[in-house]
Amino acid sequence: MNQSAVEECKNTKLDADQKEIMSLCRRRGILYPSYEIYGGVAGFFDWGPLGTRLKENFIKLWREVYIEGEEFYEIDCPNISPESVFQASGHLDEFTDFMTKCSKCGQFFRADHLAEEHHKNPDALDAAELKSVLDDNNIRCPLCKGELGDLYPFNLMFRTNIGPTSDRIGYLRPETAQGMFLNFKNLLFHHRTDLPFGAVQIGKGFRNEISPRQGVIRVREFNMAEVEYFIDPENTSHDRFSEVKDTVVTLLQDTPEKRTIQITLGEAMENNIITNQILAYFIAKTQSILVRGGIRPEFLRFRQHEEHEMAHYAEDCWDAESLTSFGWIEIVGIADRSCYDLERHMEFSKEDLRAQRKLEQTVKKREKYMEPNMSVLGPLFKGEAGKISNELSQLEPHEIENLDIDRGFELEVDGSTFNIEPKMFNFIEREVEVSVEKFIPRVVEPSYGVDRILYCIMEHSMEKRIDDGPEEFRIMHFPPLIAPYQYAVFPLMKKEGLTKESKGILEEIKRRTIGRGYIPFYDVSGSIGRRYSRMDEVGTPLCFTIDYRTLEDGTFTLRERDSRSQIRITLESDIEGIFEMLVENGGSLEELAESQGYEII
Amino acid sequence: MNQSAVEECKNTKLDADQKEIMSLCRRRGILYPSYEIYGGVAGFFDWGPLGTRLKENFIKLWREVYIEGEEFYEIDCPNISPESVFQASGHLDEFTDFMTKCSKCGQFFRADHLAEEHHKNPDALDAAELKSVLDDNNIRCPLCKGELGDLYPFNLMFRTNIGPTSDRIGYLRPETAQGMFLNFKNLLFHHRTDLPFGAVQIGKGFRNEISPRQGVIRVREFNMAEVEYFIDPENTSHDRFSEVKDTVVTLLQDTPEKRTIQITLGEAMENNIITNQILAYFIAKTQSILVRGGIRPEFLRFRQHEEHEMAHYAEDCWDAESLTSFGWIEIVGIADRSCYDLERHMEFSKEDLRAQRKLEQTVKKREKYMEPNMSVLGPLFKGEAGKISNELSQLEPHEIENLDIDRGFELEVDGSTFNIEPKMFNFIEREVEVSVEKFIPRVVEPSYGVDRILYCIMEHSMEKRIDDGPEEFRIMHFPPLIAPYQYAVFPLMKKEGLTKESKGILEEIKRRTIGRGYIPFYDVSGSIGRRYSRMDEVGTPLCFTIDYRTLEDGTFTLRERDSRSQIRITLESDIEGIFEMLVENGGSLEELAESQGYEII
Repeated sequence: MNQSAVEECKNTKLDADQKEIMSLCRRRGILYPSYEIYGGVAGFFDWGPLGTRLKENFIKLWREVYIEGEEFYEIDCPNISPESVFQASGHLDEFTDFMTKCSKCGQFFRADHLAEEHHKNPDALDAAELKSVLDDNNIRCPLCKGELGDLYPFNLMFRTNIGPTSDRIGYLRPETAQGMFLNFKNLLFHHRTDLPFGAVQIGKGFRNEISPRQGVIRVREFNMAEVEYFIDPENTSHDRFSEVKDTVVTLLQDTPEKRTIQITLGEAMENNIITNQILAYFIAKTQSILVRGGIRPEFLRFRQHEEHEMAHYAEDCWDAESLTSFGWIEIVGIADRSCYDLERHMEFSKEDLRAQRKLEQTVKKREKYMEPNMSVLGPLFKGEAGKISNELSQLEPHEIENLDIDRGFELEVDGSTFNIEPKMFNFIEREVEVSVEKFIPRVVEPSYGVDRILYCIMEHSMEKRIDDGPEEFRIMHFPPLIAPYQYAVFPLMKKEGLTKESKGILEEIKRRTIGRGYIPFYDVSGSIGRRYSRMDEVGTPLCFTIDYRTLEDGTFTLRERDSRSQIRITLESDIEGIFEMLVENGGSLEELAESQGYEII
Repeated sequence: MNQSAVEECKNTKLDADQKEIMSLCRRRGILYPSYEIYGGVAGFFDWGPLGTRLKENFIKLWREVYIEGEEFYEIDCPNISPESVFQASGHLDEFTDFMTKCSKCGQFFRADHLAEEHHKNPDALDAAELKSVLDDNNIRCPLCKGELGDLYPFNLMFRTNIGPTSDRIGYLRPETAQGMFLNFKNLLFHHRTDLPFGAVQIGKGFRNEISPRQGVIRVREFNMAEVEYFIDPENTSHDRFSEVKDTVVTLLQDTPEKRTIQITLGEAMENNIITNQILAYFIAKTQSILVRGGIRPEFLRFRQHEEHEMAHYAEDCWDAESLTSFGWIEIVGIADRSCYDLERHMEFSKEDLRAQRKLEQTVKKREKYMEPNMSVLGPLFKGEAGKISNELSQLEPHEIENLDIDRGFELEVDGSTFNIEPKMFNFIEREVEVSVEKFIPRVVEPSYGVDRILYCIMEHSMEKRIDDGPEEFRIMHFPPLIAPYQYAVFPLMKKEGLTKESKGILEEIKRRTIGRGYIPFYDVSGSIGRRYSRMDEVGTPLCFTIDYRTLEDGTFTLRERDSRSQIRITLESDIEGIFEMLVENGGSLEELAESQGYEII
């Protein structure tokens, strides 16, 4: 744990640090280092049986908000993309880190990591700046103290070949976002050409880190959940903003004094701290998802990016950051990607990726078209001159803009390609009547790093308790719907009558809750106290225990994790109602007992 | 459509073919060819907004069976794996197709595809056999009739580099299964060292096809859902087999006469057609999932693999095959992988991947251990001879088996490696008392190809209807829980009173069904008949229409897709109960009307 994080955590009463979490994760089947039997590969993790349940439960909550609630369109695209996509997106040129190699031991390092103690934002520096920081501070190889070589950019995309020859290069996607941009035309058609709409994708992202570190925080393959919200750039209001305007958020502005303030989103808009309603709306949705998922609100803030640290496509960006034993880490980026991506894909693919808005009234406009010069085309192309001329005269003004009219360009007609030179055309202005106006949509992107979020939820959920004995207990206070198991069933002892009764009750509870995605755990081994402890450690909210009294009167106990209180219920009790209240709605046993007349024991 | 498939479809009344399905998929946002704005890349597809809902709904059903029902452990491992994994798994050597290149036009072909019309099972042939089929039939390049070159194996894994240097090779996984084998020790510990247990993974698989074809049937990146069920090889019974023994299945046995029979699983076991209960149990589970998902039982059969067509790891295999316009295609493979994978990983990783069973009584056994030869070790290793000797004498019999004792081997002691030669040790037999016995578990694997299953569900769900007019209607009879939308809400006309009322009713239905994963569709555009048609075409089971009578008495219509019948309900009706009956349980409107006293109109 770094020292300032230690201090901050002390103040904020975080009970956990990375060692503690990773040890619990390992022991209880939440996370395993990948490929361990082959010595492991840095930057890869496996979500284990309980971890996958945590992850899927979080994703279910996420979908409930964005798919069921917002009615955004989820799509699922391949991980492998051809090179052309990343030429357009800018990742081929920009998605790089600076690397340096030790001239003595040959080890590679990420240059900005080496500069960390000497500069506040080394990853925002260019090669020359970064090199001076290293030189000025006489940084040498951390392993052998050898001299470090020059810096050079290393592209962080994993590269591969598609098909049997090596001439078709592909990359593993660094973000799921590109899939939504590439499908923009399809999605716009699906949404009946209307804006705004949202598209989402949940899947893997890849980043070939030079030196992965910080456990599951900086890995080479990760789970992302991304929203691309397509809007008319002239309208950045959100018609449900009023629903979130009283939401209080913690903001850290990109101003010289770097103040952290607590403020409602309405006030943040009025004071021009957040500059558009759509960003503000997604900040609210993000806070709601994260807090419902188990991030503690006091350890959550939204930080505005500084100008120089933004990704190459972003115009404004607010990160949801969460306090952990590593310090504050980014878990969600809410970026205004402006029109960058669609503009680039339109330029590179030559497809029209514009939407259109109706004008209030039709207007007459003079627009520039081509006038083919038949006296040049005719002798040169003979019988084909006619169709070439026809094609040229039909080029739309926006298509003409994309052509190199000064040096010439290639024109495809009926599957053949012709070289068009400047002398082959002139320009002419035509008056056209326009009732709609085309434009490239702007995109606001909330992008969730699922693995990081889950890690933060674990740190925030952990409580260490020392009761009577020397033993330390750990309780994971997961929200019930996020917990790997929703309930456990225990026979008090391993006696046939009790185990048989317990299995019957388990089957009955399963039957009555099937389809809700609840996972039960059945356990007979060890003392009942030890079994409760094990369930506390993985955050199981409810435990049912079948004892000798069950055999007499059918009652069995229901124990709540957080209060460690119990009530006695029977199969005739409203089990569905109990799950509704305690699991679906996160109510407490006390509330349940009060409203239903149970006695707390 | 190939001719025999056409015949079979005619007999079986399949209404759809690939062209029909792909056109509907495209139009309605189910599937899009990937990277289309850049000209497309063969073998990649995007699931669109409605397709992703189909897919996720199917996966939800799958999880309900295997995670909620069977309590198998789901894990989530990276797509990128280091080379060592596939050296052990055999994929580096065996996961290949034979390729040939045209000597004239340079195009690459999959050799077995070219031999298809001349051999029944060309993909089961080795290089020499395949070459003779091509030569004997004088097969030339299908594009230019040029001469074809030699055959050579092409590995179908996508290759990449991990990290900044190119010496760490990685591959994209061809199956998710390896993740479960690599985690076997972790999973066994998680299951408290007890067998049997199941592990599952849902995710992408990759196969760098030489020439992808048949739309979404043979692609380069696909969605898989795999189960690995680890058992004691001495016990192939399943303790819940009795639950499935009366299930009737259609089997196509690997016998000379290739008979297709309908038989209960109990009888299939008695007659030794299926050789173990575990395979039979998973055949039942698979049939249940597929039929609940929308595969028509009359178009489903289980075909036993012929000896020579099995994957390199399989000992027995039953494929679930579904009849489509392509003919019968494999959609699930249920393979007995024997102990192959764990044996290989144990051999390559040197980790002990065995489980243990308690012996009925402890037995005395004589086992072979090493006796270090100090007279050789001493002079050679001096001060280190003691610890080397100690390490040698502690080698377990199974570890000794893995060593090259005739030629010598490397021994690691305290981080240093020593070359041990045969002269440095002798053997000694020791008598040991044994109460447990170690063994390598056997694995049965049901492996689901999600994309193919969805494609088959679409073919099987489609009905074409011609009513009065010239227009053709398409109805997708998806099971309600699989359908992209569970319900639609329509105002009869685009009038303010009706749209306002409709939105209120939509919000209220959403509120009362939130968390169940239902997706509603709201539509005001076009005649009500056209709106019903659109919903029929994407298989929406329920439509609610708000009309002028709603404004008077609060009643609105509920229309059922399959019967096209309606009833009138109100918000005071038991909406939750209606969804329970019609969506969750797949009941009919007629049944609902009868049991609840609604009048069908």
